[in-house]
Amino acid sequence: MPAQHSQLTPAQARAAMARGEITGHTSALCPGYAQANLVILPRDWAYDFLLFCQRNPKPCPLLEVLDPGDPFTRDLAQGADVRDTLPRYRVWYKGVLRDEPTDIRGLWRDDLVSFFLGCSFSFDLALKQAGVPVRHLEQGRNVPMYRTSRPNRPAGRLAGPLVVSMRPMPADLVPRAVEVSGRYARTHGAPVYWGDPAGIGIVDLGRPDFGEAVEIRPGEVPVFWACGVTPQAALMEARPELAITHAPGCMFIGDRRSEELDA
Amino acid sequence: MPAQHSQLTPAQARAAMARGEITGHTSALCPGYAQANLVILPRDWAYDFLLFCQRNPKPCPLLEVLDPGDPFTRDLAQGADVRDTLPRYRVWYKGVLRDEPTDIRGLWRDDLVSFFLGCSFSFDLALKQAGVPVRHLEQGRNVPMYRTSRPNRPAGRLAGPLVVSMRPMPADLVPRAVEVSGRYARTHGAPVYWGDPAGIGIVDLGRPDFGEAVEIRPGEVPVFWACGVTPQAALMEARPELAITHAPGCMFIGDRRSEELDA
Repeated sequence: MPAQHSQLTPAQARAAMARGEITGHTSALCPGYAQANLVILPRDWAYDFLLFCQRNPKPCPLLEVLDPGDPFTRDLAQGADVRDTLPRYRVWYKGVLRDEPTDIRGLWRDDLVSFFLGCSFSFDLALKQAGVPVRHLEQGRNVPMYRTSRPNRPAGRLAGPLVVSMRPMPADLVPRAVEVSGRYARTHGAPVYWGDPAGIGIVDLGRPDFGEAVEIRPGEVPVFWACGVTPQAALMEARPELAITHAPGCMFIGDRRSEELDA
Repeated sequence: MPAQHSQLTPAQARAAMARGEITGHTSALCPGYAQANLVILPRDWAYDFLLFCQRNPKPCPLLEVLDPGDPFTRDLAQGADVRDTLPRYRVWYKGVLRDEPTDIRGLWRDDLVSFFLGCSFSFDLALKQAGVPVRHLEQGRNVPMYRTSRPNRPAGRLAGPLVVSMRPMPADLVPRAVEVSGRYARTHGAPVYWGDPAGIGIVDLGRPDFGEAVEIRPGEVPVFWACGVTPQAALMEARPELAITHAPGCMFIGDRRSEELDA
């Protein structure tokens, strides 16, 4: 990340994204501010998706839902335009990834509903301040994310596996990581699993399904959090006519401090 | 409440309701078990309602949503039939209350979606154990509930005022009541207001809009919690073709301890 981006306020960061000056992952941007996953679907799919979130709150903690056709946030930020204030999007037609644009103005329709879900980047600063290493920040990378063998609870046409993010740490710091992240229920809360990756169906930590691999040092254990990329896995299987999401790790950054969400 | 009902398990209570032997409010039944508000709507209204709950989580903490046409619970209890395991229902046609039956088998349709919302009865035992008086239990009554002047956030066709339940207590116990109920976020959590009822548009505590009035002793202040009757007020205004709810205070009683919901 260029040095000039490291001190931006959320509003400045969103403005830079709208100008196309920030197009990569947001892991190190605006530490301590709530970041959010984005899913945009036609109104016809909105009930299934809302129910999927209700039934799977750990990977899908809903923070805000906009009205059909309305591109402007109200809660996470006042009046941010969902069509260009993320660094990068993914555009899916019938479950197939077709494009990764930096804005979606040309795709907007009056029946599109925007959903924002909590993101674990929101508590990385709190982990760090508690003495828990956050390797992807240390290495200046996106967080590694993996599909697991754990199914979500289906809702209507939506089903699919849990996706997790991973942070490696010395085993004796796991309780502290659980304690600290557990306070952030609306951005995935405590980890869902730690230890042997095979236990949740992950074959190779060095080859994440999304994001970037990070170094795991001797004596460290991988710790896994539910991840807001989970809906993308469900949408790949359900194959709606159109879906627009954030690109993994390229999040919406709101004006609210992470702590506020659970207050 | 007849003495023989005071020691029932939730499953026994639901069976007695299905047989028509319990037809009144549930405030004193199954202390410590999660109780739930019920809203049943045609599928066409389900998205608006789910979004209304997402936008107003304090009065509408969603615990479980059944699939269209499915009358059987999975989470709150295994296989309880929503059509007869509540003591009493309210049936609304175009926003007008038409009937208060003790079962709704004859009204069931394949497009009906059942929503369960947390109820503050779930923490009355915890309040009592913390030394906070629970007057409606002391007096063997339903809890008093009031419409307020506070609007909810609209969602689609749904809008309406916040409805609250009220428990009077000595002023010095309010902090304890806040602390204890605050642990039960999924059954309304901490109070939304206490003190002068006029501050939230309540004219006369002696004349609740739902439930029964309770005694307020000298030196006591009224404490108000968000209430799951709130959706009924919204449905009266939105006037869907058909809505079925629990009768105020006549709740669904699940098999889960109240503490489990927030675990």
